[in-house]
Amino acid sequence: MPEPDLVAAALAGDRRALARLLSWVENGTEAGQAALAALYPRTGRAHIVGLTGSPGSGKSTLIGRVAQELRQRDNLVAIVAVDPSSPFSGGALLGDRLRMQDLVTDPGVFVRSMASRGQPGGLARATRDMIGVLDAVGFPFILVETVGAGQAEVDIARTAHTVVLVEAPGMGDDVQALKAGLMEIADILVVNKADRPEAQQTIRILQTAQQLSGPAGHHGAQAAGPTAPAAAWSPPIVQTVALEDRGVAELVEAILAHRRYLEASGYWQRRLEQQARAEVETWLQRHLLALLRERIGDAQLDEAVAAVYRREQDPASAARQLLEIVLQI
Amino acid sequence: MPEPDLVAAALAGDRRALARLLSWVENGTEAGQAALAALYPRTGRAHIVGLTGSPGSGKSTLIGRVAQELRQRDNLVAIVAVDPSSPFSGGALLGDRLRMQDLVTDPGVFVRSMASRGQPGGLARATRDMIGVLDAVGFPFILVETVGAGQAEVDIARTAHTVVLVEAPGMGDDVQALKAGLMEIADILVVNKADRPEAQQTIRILQTAQQLSGPAGHHGAQAAGPTAPAAAWSPPIVQTVALEDRGVAELVEAILAHRRYLEASGYWQRRLEQQARAEVETWLQRHLLALLRERIGDAQLDEAVAAVYRREQDPASAARQLLEIVLQI
Repeated sequence: MPEPDLVAAALAGDRRALARLLSWVENGTEAGQAALAALYPRTGRAHIVGLTGSPGSGKSTLIGRVAQELRQRDNLVAIVAVDPSSPFSGGALLGDRLRMQDLVTDPGVFVRSMASRGQPGGLARATRDMIGVLDAVGFPFILVETVGAGQAEVDIARTAHTVVLVEAPGMGDDVQALKAGLMEIADILVVNKADRPEAQQTIRILQTAQQLSGPAGHHGAQAAGPTAPAAAWSPPIVQTVALEDRGVAELVEAILAHRRYLEASGYWQRRLEQQARAEVETWLQRHLLALLRERIGDAQLDEAVAAVYRREQDPASAARQLLEIVLQI
Repeated sequence: MPEPDLVAAALAGDRRALARLLSWVENGTEAGQAALAALYPRTGRAHIVGLTGSPGSGKSTLIGRVAQELRQRDNLVAIVAVDPSSPFSGGALLGDRLRMQDLVTDPGVFVRSMASRGQPGGLARATRDMIGVLDAVGFPFILVETVGAGQAEVDIARTAHTVVLVEAPGMGDDVQALKAGLMEIADILVVNKADRPEAQQTIRILQTAQQLSGPAGHHGAQAAGPTAPAAAWSPPIVQTVALEDRGVAELVEAILAHRRYLEASGYWQRRLEQQARAEVETWLQRHLLALLRERIGDAQLDEAVAAVYRREQDPASAARQLLEIVLQI
């Protein structure tokens, strides 16, 4: 299928066309980049919600419930699973995958998992690009599932409008979120499996961590800088039992409340501006690196590195020399 | 003083010349870059030890003690304080600074604090460059003090051969190190103020965290990849009471043991190779960004960003267009 047709088909709601388009984008093909460019004017409308937590926190089940709740409110929902152990990625036990079954058969829900990629930076970029496509074809809600450990995953979570941190009590890893530096970027804290006796303990730990990490509303404040308005967002702690569908409506309400806060405070708009700048700068670097890779051969680079390693040349001069050769500057 | 003289004077042991040279390098002046290039052949010999921990862990006092211990063993020592709250940076209480007094008057110890810089990436780069100068002028040990929170500081710690994580018991922030993702990069764990009753609790927490974070020797394994030898480094937990100079000799022994491990396993050499590659790549990007900044005016960039924000142009095309204009490609 020629490319304009694929974009048109995806825009018309053809899910197979969309899936193929996403593969192009994920693999960074030229057709994918052309599609991204064509779709770009339609982006900037979706509410991107990052849901992050350790394996075993039940976040996949919770994401499924959130998607169902949003469907009941007549919204299309896209789910992007970055976590390779997610049932959405096919990485979990059969039982977990079966629980997702009714979601997968609902045409109003589109599920996509990210293939694991070599470069952490590559994964973040590919995820952002794929979210852009889903945004452009008209999903008002995009739920992004990340495992919540490691800088790459934190970076991905950070690209969301609303970051939901999912914890479960009594897993012996109550410090997971703290460890990964996730408290700082969380807009909503969820204690899932809240019917467990240890839940209150987990809530207390989260409350203490909130107090330790200073004034609330960090995520918004980060985007706002020194001119942040007085009314900051205070991340609520929502208790859920995803398996029994308890607390899910409250979580969705918290997500919608956070969006209203972002819009009323001007952060939503400001984020779009910042994103435009970040995207231009990212592409400047991408094009430049592509240009360099195209023009500097592996042998040429290896030779320069070897000379630097042997201390025959300093790195700045070696780099400048490479650039002079390939860019004729 | 003309620049070659300054480099020569610094190499001859003139501390004032060295201090001035470091300022040039820190500020990224052309003279500084020329000096870096001139000094580069002499780099690659120093053992760079990163010491990181929260304010209040006593890590500055400990660094002072480690420096004294190394001096007693007849080594020159350089201390680079990245932490603005460090007494080495002049940021602490007078009492702390007074304790550092005998260090500062020892001509065999050179202390330098990093000015706080706007860009986190800029700080890491400036720190690396300054370490390069100290290495070149012949300090066999360079102790780098970082506050141990935030990605930038973690990145700086990561550039060290040996990362020492300093914890203190009973500060109500036993999770600080876990929170910042520092356990993963620590080669040596120190429980300072080990005479406090809560010290055993802190040791147990660190041991548990070590078990949770999987097989030992992460720092070495990271550098080694899939061909890592079987004998991995297992980060020891060293107990110190820096104020009373207890455990400091043991810590220095652990640092020296880690160096022997790095050399015997080939990681030391491999790290130098990787560093040469990383430096060439960093300078390729630095030169390119400088070139772009030189050729793309703020107004031109703002205009491109505004067009992207208004969805009149996609970011990839906007970036390509800017590049075509400024690089004539």
